[in-house]
Amino acid sequence: MMTMSETSAVASDWVEVGNGGRRRILSHTPDMMVVEVDFAPGGCGPEHSHLHLQATYVRSGRFEFVIDGKTQIVGPGDALLVPSAAPHSCKVLDAGTLIDVFTPAREDFLAS
Amino acid sequence: MMTMSETSAVASDWVEVGNGGRRRILSHTPDMMVVEVDFAPGGCGPEHSHLHLQATYVRSGRFEFVIDGKTQIVGPGDALLVPSAAPHSCKVLDAGTLIDVFTPAREDFLAS
Repeated sequence: MMTMSETSAVASDWVEVGNGGRRRILSHTPDMMVVEVDFAPGGCGPEHSHLHLQATYVRSGRFEFVIDGKTQIVGPGDALLVPSAAPHSCKVLDAGTLIDVFTPAREDFLAS
Repeated sequence: MMTMSETSAVASDWVEVGNGGRRRILSHTPDMMVVEVDFAPGGCGPEHSHLHLQATYVRSGRFEFVIDGKTQIVGPGDALLVPSAAPHSCKVLDAGTLIDVFTPAREDFLAS
């Protein structure tokens, strides 16, 4: 477990998140957190929501996102934004990696 | 000029920012903005500060950042965070691309 007392510039260990996904924290302060998420072929991120604002940058792969009921297909170099409390999910079309930025930090990710 | 009335999923045109840099907006809402910044060899981002929180993900290249007087060298896959109002600058060690996420959106970028 990591604390939120100071900036971490060193990536955390990978955490398996199920559905073909794993994540690690690249950097965080209490206000903001950068998370790398790898998805295997056939993976998905089941629908969920959180109060944190989220920006997602597609480093590689192709994904079908549904945010607040609206579907978008994104690929390498694309970015999308998830408003606070908006239900969102993603389906892996081609395996790849997302960079998620949250504000404030996902304290639930620090506890796992 | 773009408005801040709705989410934009389409990248803006490139804007030359001097010192070997150019930027384009990948996505934005009033609350959050994702910006791609390309740096040519020998480029730099002169010291500046803003109230917006900033997360920077290194897509490619190698950079020397100074944030609040503290120097960090970062490369592909690294991420760093800039606190609100913290003076920060970067020097290009190897040409490459940064993905900057701001909260709230940089309204000054929308006007240019």
